[in-house]
Amino acid sequence: MSDSAKTLPPDPSARPIPVLEIFGPTIQGEGMSIGRKTMFVRTAGCDYRCSWCDSKFTWDGSAKDEIRMLSAAQIVEELFALGGDTFDHVTISGGNPLLISQMSCLVQQLRERGIRTAVETQGSRWQDWLVRIDEVTLSPKPPSSGMDTDFEALDSIVSRLLEAPGRRDLCIKIVIFDENDLTYARAVHKRYPDVPFILQTGNPQVSGESDDHVSSLLKRYEWLIGRLSELPDLKDARALPQLHTLVWGNKRGV
Amino acid sequence: MSDSAKTLPPDPSARPIPVLEIFGPTIQGEGMSIGRKTMFVRTAGCDYRCSWCDSKFTWDGSAKDEIRMLSAAQIVEELFALGGDTFDHVTISGGNPLLISQMSCLVQQLRERGIRTAVETQGSRWQDWLVRIDEVTLSPKPPSSGMDTDFEALDSIVSRLLEAPGRRDLCIKIVIFDENDLTYARAVHKRYPDVPFILQTGNPQVSGESDDHVSSLLKRYEWLIGRLSELPDLKDARALPQLHTLVWGNKRGV
Repeated sequence: MSDSAKTLPPDPSARPIPVLEIFGPTIQGEGMSIGRKTMFVRTAGCDYRCSWCDSKFTWDGSAKDEIRMLSAAQIVEELFALGGDTFDHVTISGGNPLLISQMSCLVQQLRERGIRTAVETQGSRWQDWLVRIDEVTLSPKPPSSGMDTDFEALDSIVSRLLEAPGRRDLCIKIVIFDENDLTYARAVHKRYPDVPFILQTGNPQVSGESDDHVSSLLKRYEWLIGRLSELPDLKDARALPQLHTLVWGNKRGV
Repeated sequence: MSDSAKTLPPDPSARPIPVLEIFGPTIQGEGMSIGRKTMFVRTAGCDYRCSWCDSKFTWDGSAKDEIRMLSAAQIVEELFALGGDTFDHVTISGGNPLLISQMSCLVQQLRERGIRTAVETQGSRWQDWLVRIDEVTLSPKPPSSGMDTDFEALDSIVSRLLEAPGRRDLCIKIVIFDENDLTYARAVHKRYPDVPFILQTGNPQVSGESDDHVSSLLKRYEWLIGRLSELPDLKDARALPQLHTLVWGNKRGV
């Protein structure tokens, strides 16, 4: 090690990333790229505690022994070990990946390999690397989650993404369990009318399986389609289920 | 009627359109705009006879008494009578709507009202109005359909759409029942690598209902995801089910 390396502070973008899952190839089961072949990197840690979170293990401590601190290079290596030459798309999910400033290094390395990137976040925190993501999904949480939306933070994130140079896909996706959630969603769409808008069927049973899970989710989806159909203020919206939940239930790693 | 009107030939764009169904609002259940709120106009008549066609009534004579010859203005009126002010998107489906040259008048009237339009066709015929459609889905039919693809016609349609001025979304969507269909799909994607590409789960039971229809469709979809995941030549593809079939089975008018 040279003398100058000894005295320089460590590069913050080189800090390891807390990772809970790396899996794929599979499909993105929800949102604007529904059905798209992708690999997943799931980070640990969240600033929210949604009542119906389907990935509570990312923040409730139950999987803390599974968290691995990996460098961007190690994550890329593992993605290619799993997916070989079959993929060109990586979805970074959480938890809330926007808690992790050192993600910039992973994003950069994926871009350099021609890999398209997607991120989903509730829109509570900003990181500069977000403008380098190809597909950004903001999913503010409706009342049924038990969380409050910081609209000042969300306003700022939407503005920065809409104004940033370069091309990216952006959407707002809101999970809908009930009429209160729908009222919240309509207000959000009114606030950001230029951002493509998706309503997503809520999954009330996020662990274990039951015989009628699929039919219960499809009934919820049918209700959501019916409500969407009636609403003049949601002309240009989409209603979607989670396809992975229909196919695999609550199984992890698919 | 004036003398000149008597002697002029009738305006071909004003001929009535053979319509079998007008319904909605509902969601587009498949393809690139999956989940999008839309109204449907289904035309009668097809140049294909796909073995597994889910709308055989558009061409097999079984619904010939339901065909209505409607002017563009009548169709628009019926769309607004049904959908009021809740929609801004109309999907024109068939049959093969590209058999109908006088569709230009409907497309024009919808555009004038700020309505976004989508069309699905197998890509066997051209009409000039196709370049004025916002979302064009070309769905050439794989071997399981029993049809042969006229690749000269398809080449010409893809080129004309890619070269036409103006902005539109274009995708190729192929129904997949088996490995032969997948081999066909891979060749089509190789032929048109720049066109967004969707694999769609085949529905082998296109009439009536059975208790295990949903689980059988989801198993087919899971198989399709598995195959897509493995294939290096289908990196940037999507695999999607038909959501309306999961929710409503083979019911018409939803």
